[in-house]
Amino acid sequence: MTYSIDQLLQKFHTYLEENRFEQAPKALYDPVNYIMNLGGKRLRPLLVLMAHQLYDEDVDQSLPLALAVETFHNFSLVHDDIMDAALIRRGKPSVHTRYGLNAGILSGDVMLIWVYQYLLRVQAPHLIPQVVRIFNQVAIEVCEGQQYDINFEQRNDVTIPEYLKMIELKTAALMAGSLQLGALVGGADQEAIQHLDQFGRLIGIAFQLQDDWLDTFGELEKVGKKIGGDIVQNKKTYLILKALETAQGPTKVALVEMMNTPTTNEEEKINWVKNVLSELKIAQLTTDLRDEYREKAFHHLHLLQADNEVKKVIGNLADKLVYREV
Amino acid sequence: MTYSIDQLLQKFHTYLEENRFEQAPKALYDPVNYIMNLGGKRLRPLLVLMAHQLYDEDVDQSLPLALAVETFHNFSLVHDDIMDAALIRRGKPSVHTRYGLNAGILSGDVMLIWVYQYLLRVQAPHLIPQVVRIFNQVAIEVCEGQQYDINFEQRNDVTIPEYLKMIELKTAALMAGSLQLGALVGGADQEAIQHLDQFGRLIGIAFQLQDDWLDTFGELEKVGKKIGGDIVQNKKTYLILKALETAQGPTKVALVEMMNTPTTNEEEKINWVKNVLSELKIAQLTTDLRDEYREKAFHHLHLLQADNEVKKVIGNLADKLVYREV
Repeated sequence: MTYSIDQLLQKFHTYLEENRFEQAPKALYDPVNYIMNLGGKRLRPLLVLMAHQLYDEDVDQSLPLALAVETFHNFSLVHDDIMDAALIRRGKPSVHTRYGLNAGILSGDVMLIWVYQYLLRVQAPHLIPQVVRIFNQVAIEVCEGQQYDINFEQRNDVTIPEYLKMIELKTAALMAGSLQLGALVGGADQEAIQHLDQFGRLIGIAFQLQDDWLDTFGELEKVGKKIGGDIVQNKKTYLILKALETAQGPTKVALVEMMNTPTTNEEEKINWVKNVLSELKIAQLTTDLRDEYREKAFHHLHLLQADNEVKKVIGNLADKLVYREV
Repeated sequence: MTYSIDQLLQKFHTYLEENRFEQAPKALYDPVNYIMNLGGKRLRPLLVLMAHQLYDEDVDQSLPLALAVETFHNFSLVHDDIMDAALIRRGKPSVHTRYGLNAGILSGDVMLIWVYQYLLRVQAPHLIPQVVRIFNQVAIEVCEGQQYDINFEQRNDVTIPEYLKMIELKTAALMAGSLQLGALVGGADQEAIQHLDQFGRLIGIAFQLQDDWLDTFGELEKVGKKIGGDIVQNKKTYLILKALETAQGPTKVALVEMMNTPTTNEEEKINWVKNVLSELKIAQLTTDLRDEYREKAFHHLHLLQADNEVKKVIGNLADKLVYREV
């Protein structure tokens, strides 16, 4: 049988609940339980379990990997929220806001170590070196991506290829790694793992381009957060980088100046930038590029030797992700 | 042949140099190179290599493990210095002082991930799960120990057994883990690994008791830092906890009050506390307990089935550590 997305989510939530931290010291583990139970789409665990299901029915074997990638993702949120001075996460106080800076750092650290505890639970010991190797590669990419993201704030000459590389590292790599890990433990061969890696990376980039588009052109009700936040924060998203590349003369000068000026009147700035983006047809260029990445991703899914029914489910999930229906 | 301590140190430093981070992003890896090259005794790498040498001459095989434990130790220093707001490390600016808070957090994180990269370099793949398992156990203990250390600052009822457990977790566990890892890759059996674990833990506790003693009763020239720092900071060291246990009547009341009062006149406070400790014979009680732990440690070394010459060298190193001649 093939498990549905809801069934896989149910399995993951049961496993997460069984792995709550009840041990001492509470001050270390309470923040871990807090962030792990703030919700979220559980997208990365789903990718692990679905990739396992491409090759093997016994998806429970990959539950530790699902918990590992979700724990790593949440670890990165805890530390990123400190670095970004973000007070809110999923509508609630971020970990360091609620428990303090030191708890944010130390509880994040212990989460990262627990990730490897979960990886060690893989039942076939001969797979563990490769499991750790795949995970480590991704984890390093995520840190490097976060560093590039920080660097870009200080730079005025970020290129579009640099930006695409940054989002691949920071966001897409972990999606790709989730697919690789589930497939490996499910019994996939190296060629299949390579295709899933590429599929995950390309879908992840499409996902992030859609994120950039939604932040400026989305609807408040659907996005669930204030529209225009990236503009207010002078974030160098794809939209802005493409606009800087396309704009000419006084528009370009004004755009550069605006990006280097802290926002005073939010509404005015959002409207002005949106107007410039519209004139330059940036929305269309962004969704075109997003669809191009999606197409390339699906090419790898097409080439993949695996259960066709599950391939269809993964494709549907990827589309829901890219077009934000989950 | 048996390598001397100096020869092992030389090997480690060569390997460390070969593994400098030259890749981008510089902002992520410069702080790593900085902390890894601030010096230090390289005690944990030495323990790895010497434990390997107990069973096998080809100590180079354990160089990745030596780098792993030293990287982990330095990762913990980077994050602890943030948590303790410590401006200085080994006489130089601490990482977050020099590179900023965010660099301290993110560079620390990537160091922790690289630890596992080094562990994966172990040449016998079938040993990797146990290598990661031993390391993880220790790494979790270090985080938990750091949390207890933080908790103790807020508590007035810390017991001596709790304190000894805290220093075992925070300090001794990593020494024990270093010995276990080197021995495992050198070819030791499980019984030998258990003895080395116990030896490392007991020596580590003796080491920390000596640290407490030196901070109050040491000589500036030998210790290399201001005497009485723990007293000024109201740290609940073994000396203070033992004094609180032993003192009676008005002395006890005055001691408790002093511990809960921020220091204004440093010299006066140091002298007063030292007088109380002398009256209660705390210095002697501390060195007695230190020697007791050292004895128990050496019992495990005695029981160890291993190269006798190397056992002698490890014993000498342990004594130099405990009595601070390295």
